Amino acid sequence: MHKLVVISGDGIGREVVPVAVEVLEKLLPNLKTVKAEAGWDCFQRHGAAVPEATLQALRDCGAGLFGAVSSPSQRVNGYRSAILQMRQALQLDVNLRPVRSWPVVSAKQGVDLIILRENCEGLYSGREHLEADGVAIAERVITRDACKALALRTLEVAKARNARRITLVHKANILPLTCGLFRDTCLEVLEGEGWAAQLDERLVDLAALQLVQQPEAFDLIVTTNLFGDILSDLACHWSGGLALAPSLNWGQGIALAEPVHGSAPDITGSGRANPLAAILSLALLLRYRWLDEDNAKRLEQAVESFLQQEGRADFGVDTTRVVREGVLAAL
Amino acid sequence: MHKLVVISGDGIGREVVPVAVEVLEKLLPNLKTVKAEAGWDCFQRHGAAVPEATLQALRDCGAGLFGAVSSPSQRVNGYRSAILQMRQALQLDVNLRPVRSWPVVSAKQGVDLIILRENCEGLYSGREHLEADGVAIAERVITRDACKALALRTLEVAKARNARRITLVHKANILPLTCGLFRDTCLEVLEGEGWAAQLDERLVDLAALQLVQQPEAFDLIVTTNLFGDILSDLACHWSGGLALAPSLNWGQGIALAEPVHGSAPDITGSGRANPLAAILSLALLLRYRWLDEDNAKRLEQAVESFLQQEGRADFGVDTTRVVREGVLAAL
Ligand SMILES: CC(C)[C@H](C(=O)O)[C@@H](O)C(=O)O
Ligand SMILES: CC(C)[C@H](C(=O)O)[C@@H](O)C(=O)O
Repeated sequence: MHKLVVISGDGIGREVVPVAVEVLEKLLPNLKTVKAEAGWDCFQRHGAAVPEATLQALRDCGAGLFGAVSSPSQRVNGYRSAILQMRQALQLDVNLRPVRSWPVVSAKQGVDLIILRENCEGLYSGREHLEADGVAIAERVITRDACKALALRTLEVAKARNARRITLVHKANILPLTCGLFRDTCLEVLEGEGWAAQLDERLVDLAALQLVQQPEAFDLIVTTNLFGDILSDLACHWSGGLALAPSLNWGQGIALAEPVHGSAPDITGSGRANPLAAILSLALLLRYRWLDEDNAKRLEQAVESFLQQEGRADFGVDTTRVVREGVLAAL
Repeated sequence: MHKLVVISGDGIGREVVPVAVEVLEKLLPNLKTVKAEAGWDCFQRHGAAVPEATLQALRDCGAGLFGAVSSPSQRVNGYRSAILQMRQALQLDVNLRPVRSWPVVSAKQGVDLIILRENCEGLYSGREHLEADGVAIAERVITRDACKALALRTLEVAKARNARRITLVHKANILPLTCGLFRDTCLEVLEGEGWAAQLDERLVDLAALQLVQQPEAFDLIVTTNLFGDILSDLACHWSGGLALAPSLNWGQGIALAEPVHGSAPDITGSGRANPLAAILSLALLLRYRWLDEDNAKRLEQAVESFLQQEGRADFGVDTTRVVREGVLAAL
């Protein structure tokens, strides 16, 4: 029996998460869900953006769906982004972000790539200080252990999809030590496991350009935290923008599905929130955490036939309802 | 009388630079040129990628054109990228990279933006070390002085083009101190000079996506070193890729024009090297260093009418010759 911690969070998180859970329940009638809290609203009520009970529930169940959180516009003492806290506290060491073409809504057909991003360190280390008045330093921390975890996870994905190409993205011409450690560690693991013929490297600036020029040329992209943040946002243009961008925060025996979009205060309550990214994030949970390829495919095919049938990319003020009914019907 | 230091560098630098200089000489018959060396070839012959004589020539003339350099595929003791050395040694504190639509060759019409990138610090600080076995640290250094220089240069450009929008790009949600210092310093300078109504901010991941989705919405983009490196490469897709991507390394009373492309060993000697990026870099030198808007426009219009007349984007094995003859004829 599968257990899922359900964290709606703030804003449209509360509108898309219930729909995604309803869809998953249709696939897995025995699914057990556990509600938990995290986010800005939670911080204001309990003084913690991620209460210990939420972390514990995630550890116990080993799987979760997280909607979205609002961030205060000014720095607030004691507040730190809920998603960052969960990634680091639970060692969700890889972030998996697929970008693929869908019928009707995608800017280009034939795109099918996955960005695997280190998820806990790099410039997200939290190590930042003032060295002197007017001199600020942030430390980009790269460790062999985190690169190894990333490479091992990459290996799993490469095998599962019979990858034709694995592109390591870095900036080793400028950052020989940190990017060098990333590159050498990934190469060692992947070459050691027989993937030398598929391996390839790109500097991050050229990778960004090529992701615009020829996204269909990529298959697996493996990179550090902030590079992955930037590249996955730009690449999701090809699948249909943030409304269709799913992700999986993925650790050892635990994973947290998360639509890439934010809490979208501008459309909260309008009916325009699109649950597709949340739904597709659950497909990733099925495929990579629960190793349930059949249901992952079933879910993605339901999304595909729903889009095909609708034949439009914009569902206006009825988006949440139309997507909910359409995907449930297609299942 | 204008003086220009001419540094061909390696690879196709030697093919595009002479063409660009010839074009500039047609506009400025009294131009005095001074040859100087830099790059990998220079390093192998003299033991220095940028000899002191080259730096001195640039200081004396206050203007230069730099072609491209090859980089060794492995780390070489004592070798550091020639362009980085020049940027830092000469305090070329801003890198200006315009992206605009051209007839025929551009992927989209209506794009006209400039990326202004801090050019000496950030993750290019050179401060990188091993903290322990398997733990590498790179320091992202952000100083108020460098941000101020960037903001003042932005001001010049904003006035010259009557900017409708100035977008500060950062990741202050993750890097509150370094990106915060960048943002606050830029805001202070630009608001203080009356540009509050045009000012806007974006997180770097969203900026990357929007540069793909709607590049025509941007005008001036101001950002830190590595973010600018990534964003300017991806954005140059809209103007026609690296073959049409010019840049200006810009300091106080000194500037170094530089096509963004590399030394392209794969096409060196084939006749395929495209001198347009080098030519357009000289237009930037005319406009921003020599304040010669008339000749800058004349040059850009010659490129425009050349492309219009050719009516094709690919000039095959005759590229260098066709571009040379076409632009000279159009002048
Ligand atoms: C919200 C923010 C902290 C986060 C990140 O930078 O990782 C987001 O952009 C993402 O991509 O999940
Ligand atoms: C060659 C390299 C050092 C350089 C950089 O990273 O700045 C290049 O990519 C550029 O954009 O000018």
